[in-house]
Amino acid sequence: MTVIYPVIMAGGTGTRLWPLSRQARPKQFQPIVSERPMLTETLTRLTAVEGVEMRAPIIVCGKDHAELAAASFEGLEISAGQLVLEPFGRNTAPCAIIASLLVEEEEPEALVLLLPADHHITDQKGFSQAIQHAAKTAAEGYLTALGIAPDRPETGYGYIRHGEKLDPHACKVDRFVEKPDLPMAEQYLADGQYSWNAGIFLFPARLLLGEADAYAAEMTGACRKALDTSRRDGQTVHLDPETFADVPSDSIDYALMEQTSRAALVGPVSMGWNDIGSWHAVRELADSVAPDTENVIVKNCRRTFVKTDGPTVATVGLDNVIVVATDDAVLVIDADQAQDVKAIIEELKAKGRTDLL
Amino acid sequence: MTVIYPVIMAGGTGTRLWPLSRQARPKQFQPIVSERPMLTETLTRLTAVEGVEMRAPIIVCGKDHAELAAASFEGLEISAGQLVLEPFGRNTAPCAIIASLLVEEEEPEALVLLLPADHHITDQKGFSQAIQHAAKTAAEGYLTALGIAPDRPETGYGYIRHGEKLDPHACKVDRFVEKPDLPMAEQYLADGQYSWNAGIFLFPARLLLGEADAYAAEMTGACRKALDTSRRDGQTVHLDPETFADVPSDSIDYALMEQTSRAALVGPVSMGWNDIGSWHAVRELADSVAPDTENVIVKNCRRTFVKTDGPTVATVGLDNVIVVATDDAVLVIDADQAQDVKAIIEELKAKGRTDLL
Repeated sequence: MTVIYPVIMAGGTGTRLWPLSRQARPKQFQPIVSERPMLTETLTRLTAVEGVEMRAPIIVCGKDHAELAAASFEGLEISAGQLVLEPFGRNTAPCAIIASLLVEEEEPEALVLLLPADHHITDQKGFSQAIQHAAKTAAEGYLTALGIAPDRPETGYGYIRHGEKLDPHACKVDRFVEKPDLPMAEQYLADGQYSWNAGIFLFPARLLLGEADAYAAEMTGACRKALDTSRRDGQTVHLDPETFADVPSDSIDYALMEQTSRAALVGPVSMGWNDIGSWHAVRELADSVAPDTENVIVKNCRRTFVKTDGPTVATVGLDNVIVVATDDAVLVIDADQAQDVKAIIEELKAKGRTDLL
Repeated sequence: MTVIYPVIMAGGTGTRLWPLSRQARPKQFQPIVSERPMLTETLTRLTAVEGVEMRAPIIVCGKDHAELAAASFEGLEISAGQLVLEPFGRNTAPCAIIASLLVEEEEPEALVLLLPADHHITDQKGFSQAIQHAAKTAAEGYLTALGIAPDRPETGYGYIRHGEKLDPHACKVDRFVEKPDLPMAEQYLADGQYSWNAGIFLFPARLLLGEADAYAAEMTGACRKALDTSRRDGQTVHLDPETFADVPSDSIDYALMEQTSRAALVGPVSMGWNDIGSWHAVRELADSVAPDTENVIVKNCRRTFVKTDGPTVATVGLDNVIVVATDDAVLVIDADQAQDVKAIIEELKAKGRTDLL
């Protein structure tokens, strides 16, 4: 059976979900859409994939979040694999390379399933099947992306144009395209030959390292050096700040997927995928979330979403408003302007309110 | 010079300004419109009245708020008079009677100025002149109400219809009228013979007691008994719960002013009066209040008012919304529905959340 090492990228800071998401406790370690941390949901999702041999998940996260990462396994039937602690973020390409180097040490022929910790997927069966299909394609020698069937002209995601068909579920990648403007997104949607880039990848560790050596030699060399100089403490890999600082920061999309001739796509997949990129996205999923009736009172409100992990929140007469309350910060935002949380973060930085970041 | 004993009614619970106003700390003991507690503002306002001899203010409040009442004098040049502690509320008529009994003990010929602790008055000179005029009218043997010149067809206030002219500033009361509906309020406004009833009264202590004996004999007897059985501790009068329970609850308007033939009105007075009856009213005055820029971030909002005494509040893209945040409760309400804070209070009671009341 195909052996897969899941590598979960849990290094983001999740500022778009401020004030719940903080530097000290980013969204992936918190319950956002369900009552369990997002990372725990992601781990749970893996346990249900059949037809492959799933190894213990490798977690890559910031050095300050080791305990939060370990705690995410509590109550699960799977145990933690290696924990890679980054002194700072270097985007996803170094993450893919270092994880592949670690997998190569264990089982050189194994596949790596690289996926973000903080995505929401409602259709477990769809996810499992997509992984099975992607494992087959990857095993045939492809760096395989999961492509999501678009259901709206979303301007917040990157797209992948489908290339030559490989089998009923997979094709080569024609090209990756940047986040489009609305007319372009509408065109992609109508065209039918485009999938959303979910940021989930499956590939043979050895193949990725070969392509990385070919197309991102400097980065790959720096990653090898960072791993060589890292401190290993049981299952924990403490990356060395000095050598890791020499690793260029880039995404796997730019650094590798757009360069290689071995890029493939499984999809378009429909699995209820959402990258939870804003409170607006959380609200869209809120129908399936039990309201926190103990601490929330809502009177005469429409399209209004309330989330609190501290104070009781009472709302009256609102329309299309999102309220997020914590003990030290409260956000009240028009749902259509949910992306502007960024402006709040900037203002807090300008005010020196690092206590709230 | 006319001797006046100010009697400040500080017994309300101020639920309409929840969540800042709480049973343990009602709005009159808190900074709402300015940076000082409303009671302190009311006390300060008295010190500036010229042409009369203002005695130390008598405060009437709930038994649990003695310390808050005492603290309201901090930093002022006036000292506290007697402090009357009620075991529970009995509306304003018993308050007027008991205060008059206390004043009668000291200076039987003195006037009583009965006024709420939690009103906002922007025009100090207008207030001072109104008190001077009312003192003259009261001294001539009238229970004198302050009438406010209406500037809009307000349905939230009671009105007083002007009667026979007494002097350029005063007239007899023709009749008191209930809070009107909008067409009626518009009619009162157009008529010109109506003032708002500000709930501020000036009268000779002895005259009030005489009228009270005549028109509210049961209440007056019960008040005398409650005072006789009260425990006096220096300047503090602890009303006895058992005997005070026998005092009927009624307003000075109903119980006395509408009954007596000695009701007069000074007004219509323009003095920037506002009873701060809701957060909507607070917002209307907010232009003159320094924004709490340290803890409030407002982006792209219109007609939006934010008040916090704890968490930092960030708002984006709101229109006509009021946000009030405390450490344990947050209110987000459409400004036009500010009266519906009552519904929140009811819901909290139904949920047994006495911790938030």
